[in-house]
Amino acid sequence: MTRTVLESKSKTTVIGFDEPFCVIGERINPTGRKKLAAELEAGDFSTVEKDALEQVACGAMVLDINAGVVYNSNPDPNLTEPPLMTRMIELVQGLVDIPLCIDSSVPAALEAGLAAAEGRPLLNSVTGEEERLELVLPLVKKYNVPVVAISNDDTGISEDPDVRFAVAKKIVERAADFGIPAHDIVVDPLVMPVGAMATAGQQVFQLVRRLRDELGVNTTCGASNVSFGLPNRHGINGAFLPMAIGAGMTSAIMNPTRQVEMEAIRAANLLMNHDAHGSAWIGFSRVLDATAGGESFVDASRAAMEAGGGGRGGRRRRRA
Amino acid sequence: MTRTVLESKSKTTVIGFDEPFCVIGERINPTGRKKLAAELEAGDFSTVEKDALEQVACGAMVLDINAGVVYNSNPDPNLTEPPLMTRMIELVQGLVDIPLCIDSSVPAALEAGLAAAEGRPLLNSVTGEEERLELVLPLVKKYNVPVVAISNDDTGISEDPDVRFAVAKKIVERAADFGIPAHDIVVDPLVMPVGAMATAGQQVFQLVRRLRDELGVNTTCGASNVSFGLPNRHGINGAFLPMAIGAGMTSAIMNPTRQVEMEAIRAANLLMNHDAHGSAWIGFSRVLDATAGGESFVDASRAAMEAGGGGRGGRRRRRA
Repeated sequence: MTRTVLESKSKTTVIGFDEPFCVIGERINPTGRKKLAAELEAGDFSTVEKDALEQVACGAMVLDINAGVVYNSNPDPNLTEPPLMTRMIELVQGLVDIPLCIDSSVPAALEAGLAAAEGRPLLNSVTGEEERLELVLPLVKKYNVPVVAISNDDTGISEDPDVRFAVAKKIVERAADFGIPAHDIVVDPLVMPVGAMATAGQQVFQLVRRLRDELGVNTTCGASNVSFGLPNRHGINGAFLPMAIGAGMTSAIMNPTRQVEMEAIRAANLLMNHDAHGSAWIGFSRVLDATAGGESFVDASRAAMEAGGGGRGGRRRRRA
Repeated sequence: MTRTVLESKSKTTVIGFDEPFCVIGERINPTGRKKLAAELEAGDFSTVEKDALEQVACGAMVLDINAGVVYNSNPDPNLTEPPLMTRMIELVQGLVDIPLCIDSSVPAALEAGLAAAEGRPLLNSVTGEEERLELVLPLVKKYNVPVVAISNDDTGISEDPDVRFAVAKKIVERAADFGIPAHDIVVDPLVMPVGAMATAGQQVFQLVRRLRDELGVNTTCGASNVSFGLPNRHGINGAFLPMAIGAGMTSAIMNPTRQVEMEAIRAANLLMNHDAHGSAWIGFSRVLDATAGGESFVDASRAAMEAGGGGRGGRRRRRA
């Protein structure tokens, strides 16, 4: 039974075949968020604080922290990312007590994050690229943390799912050479936009089953990619997530403040028998009832958390 | 490749592994609808007409017709159902040109329906009960129609999915003795409420895969059963349907005038590569946009159909 164990200072989140789907909050990331990038450059962390609290209130079980901002004053991420990563991690773990996911393409930022994070964070990410394998796997071993493995390599991202599976297998084997077990590798099989590649959904569902059955690994994805370029994306995401969960996907890096997607995930947990006595669904129903009455999803989620009925994030905060 | 071919006077609907999910509209059924039952006894068919038109506008690909009303004036369904079935079928096929599903527990009503229906209707249903097998399979053979096979037998409905699979297998084998091919049998594996049986969802997903892989049959279900007794049922149904479709379910008997469920199905069709170039999704998005603007789903669907952009039902009506 594959279990990937993540820890914050005092709380544990398990990604696993027999666990509720693990929602990794993606919001703390300046990529494509110009306003946030400018704030960070100016030393203003108010949006980071808001994003941390809102995502946990809405049900995030892990928070991704990405410090990939390009400063106008200093365009070298090798210099700017590591101290910003440290600062953001210290800030976030002072506010919320859930495991973090340290997300960077800059190895020094990954190491800075590993040094700053309490507990057992998830490292994001290694790929099948030789240079990346040689840089990241030693960090994974040294800090004894789990790692996201993205199934592209030096030839790029293959449209052939068999090639992507082979890349994932290579990473798992290479990790084993370092003494890193398969249950500490969370494979991202790469979700293509279904509007550009009609087989994109089926590819992912088949890949997830193979990764689970043949490699015994947990899986994750950037869930919203699947609907890129199409209208009414939430409707597509809201069907994709339950289908991926049914196929065996165990986590996603996504925006937890979106009601449609979170409702789909909580219903899928119930249908997978990962919600004992339906108690999480029944608690979440109070949030849905409040939104039906006109409240925003974030406000309703926060109110439910404060009342102790908002599901996992809420109960966890109250026990803290 | 399993294909169950249904026909109306001039239109064909195929239930199949490589087809969009087949939505069988359930609304024309007086069971549990006291007002409709009273109207039918009084000879008022206005609700039947409305239900037929609305369901087709919203995307039904087959209409279930159930005449199971118990008249105050005559409580014997063996006498009341056959002529009412004939009347309802004649009425509905005069209004809309999509295949029908003749739904009764009264064999004489099934035969009346088969005599009245144009094209190739679906018969609903046979079970594994001996008496029912002996009464219904000869009708299926005589009229050369496909049939819904419900996986209960003389011992009732088993909570054990292996028993339900065995019942389905027995029906398929018995049908073969009559010369009825497996592709003309649409198995209902029976969906239990997940609130009463925590494994109900997983049971169905596993059963659907086995029915498809081992018996080569199409499948259907009463989709909304899964959420019985729980709050915010549409949210559960809206996750269940994509998960069932991902597992291989090919049709459901359901209410097509419900937006959440229909959106989930249309998104699942796209993700299963059963929506060439996403054109059905893009057409349906206009309906979603109209509902976001405050219009009802039925009104928005009807408007889209009349404009020729409402997806399959709409295009079909325009070609008629």
